[in-house]
Amino acid sequence: MPRRSSAPNPAFLFDVDGTLVDSVYEHVTAWTEALARGGMLVPAWRVHRYIGMSGGMFVRALAREMDRSLSDSAAKQMDEWHKQGFAARTKNLRTLPGSKELLDELTRLKVRWAIATSGKLDSAVPALRALGLNEKARNIVTREDAKLAKPDPDLFLAAAKRIRVKPQHAIVVGDSVWDLLAARRANALGVGLLTGGYSRDELERAGAYRVYSDPADLLQHLNELGLRPE
Amino acid sequence: MPRRSSAPNPAFLFDVDGTLVDSVYEHVTAWTEALARGGMLVPAWRVHRYIGMSGGMFVRALAREMDRSLSDSAAKQMDEWHKQGFAARTKNLRTLPGSKELLDELTRLKVRWAIATSGKLDSAVPALRALGLNEKARNIVTREDAKLAKPDPDLFLAAAKRIRVKPQHAIVVGDSVWDLLAARRANALGVGLLTGGYSRDELERAGAYRVYSDPADLLQHLNELGLRPE
Repeated sequence: MPRRSSAPNPAFLFDVDGTLVDSVYEHVTAWTEALARGGMLVPAWRVHRYIGMSGGMFVRALAREMDRSLSDSAAKQMDEWHKQGFAARTKNLRTLPGSKELLDELTRLKVRWAIATSGKLDSAVPALRALGLNEKARNIVTREDAKLAKPDPDLFLAAAKRIRVKPQHAIVVGDSVWDLLAARRANALGVGLLTGGYSRDELERAGAYRVYSDPADLLQHLNELGLRPE
Repeated sequence: MPRRSSAPNPAFLFDVDGTLVDSVYEHVTAWTEALARGGMLVPAWRVHRYIGMSGGMFVRALAREMDRSLSDSAAKQMDEWHKQGFAARTKNLRTLPGSKELLDELTRLKVRWAIATSGKLDSAVPALRALGLNEKARNIVTREDAKLAKPDPDLFLAAAKRIRVKPQHAIVVGDSVWDLLAARRANALGVGLLTGGYSRDELERAGAYRVYSDPADLLQHLNELGLRPE
C-alpha cells in the first residue's frame, strides 16, 4: 500500500521586488530622494530596512518615528515622486539569477506557485514582463487584490487562494523581514533570500526556515524544502 | 598622587562614505550600472557587500568570482563610469545624523581624530566639504596617502601617524566589514555603524567592539568607548 502524507506537496508564494527582480537598491535611492523632496531627511539605510512594507505605511511609520505630522496629500505626493524616480532609474529592470529557471522548474514539477507583489498592477508590469509573466495570469496577485499590503498577510492569503492551496501548505519566498512577518501571520513557512540586502541573521531572526543567496541557490536546494519527488 | 593609565586617551580614525556621509546606496547603484555597462551583471546586493573595499580590488574580486578575465583598461573604464554615475546621482551629498556634532565634540574634548577615506582626493572633496572639513588639513588621509586601500590597514596606519598616535590606541569607526578587517590588521579597536546597511550581526562578527546606529548614537555613547573625562 503506498504511503501518503496528510499534507499535499508544498506550494510557493513569491514576493517580486528584491526576490525575483533586482530592484531594492533603486527603490531605496528613489524613496530617499522622494522623502527628502518632501522635507523628510531619512538616511538611506533606514529607508532600506522599510522597503517591502507598503509605501503608504512606511512613510507614515517614518513620520511617527520622526515625530512629525503628515497630511495624506503630502504622503501621496512623496509616493508619486518615488514612482517617478524609480521609473527614471530602472530603464533596464534586471531579473535575479535563477528567477525564471526556478519558476520553470516548479511548473515542470507540477508544483503550484503564485506571485504576490506589494506593487500596484501598473507599477508591477515591468517586473512581471522581465520575468516573462503575463500580468493577467490567475496566479499573479497585486496590491489591488488585497485589502492591506505587507506586513499584513492579506496578499499571501489572496495568492494562496488563487492557486487553491491552504496557506499552511505554502512556502513564502521573500527578501525582507516584512515578507517573513507576513508569512508568519499567514501561517505559511517563510524562506529568505539575501538578494534584498538583509543579512542571513536578520532573515533567520524574522523567522526564515532557510535562507538562500538568490533564486538560483534556492533552485539548487529545492529538496531541502520538503518537496516530494513526483 | 594622581593615577595614570599606561595608555593615552583613545584617538578616533573615521571612514567617510557610509560612516559620516550618506553615500553607500548611491555607490551601489552607480557601481551596479558601471559593471553592467562593462558586461558584468552583478546583483546589487553583492555589490553592496563589496563597497568600502578599493574599487579596483573589488572589480577584480568579482571578475575572479565570475571566472572572467578582466583587462586593466576594462577595469579602469568601469571605475570611470562609476565615478560619472555617482557624481550624477549625488548633487546633494548629505551628511549622516550627528557627523559634524561628533567631530566637534571630539575637538572640544581634545580627543585626537583623523579621517581615512578610500576615495581619491578629488572624489573625496564633496564629502569633506559637506562635513565642513578642509581637504588640506593634516588629519585627512585619502587614497593617495597609502600604498594599499582597505581592507589593507595602510590608510588607517597613515591616518594614525598623521595625528601621532599608535594604532593600538586608536578606535576605527566604519560602516563596513572592510573597515573592521582593516582595523584588526592595524591593531586598532573597531567600532561599527549601521549607516552603511550592514546588519549589527555582520559588523560584530567582523570584529566590531560596539555597533551604533549612526554618528549621533555614537556621540551619545562616547563614554562606552573608554574616553577619560579631561
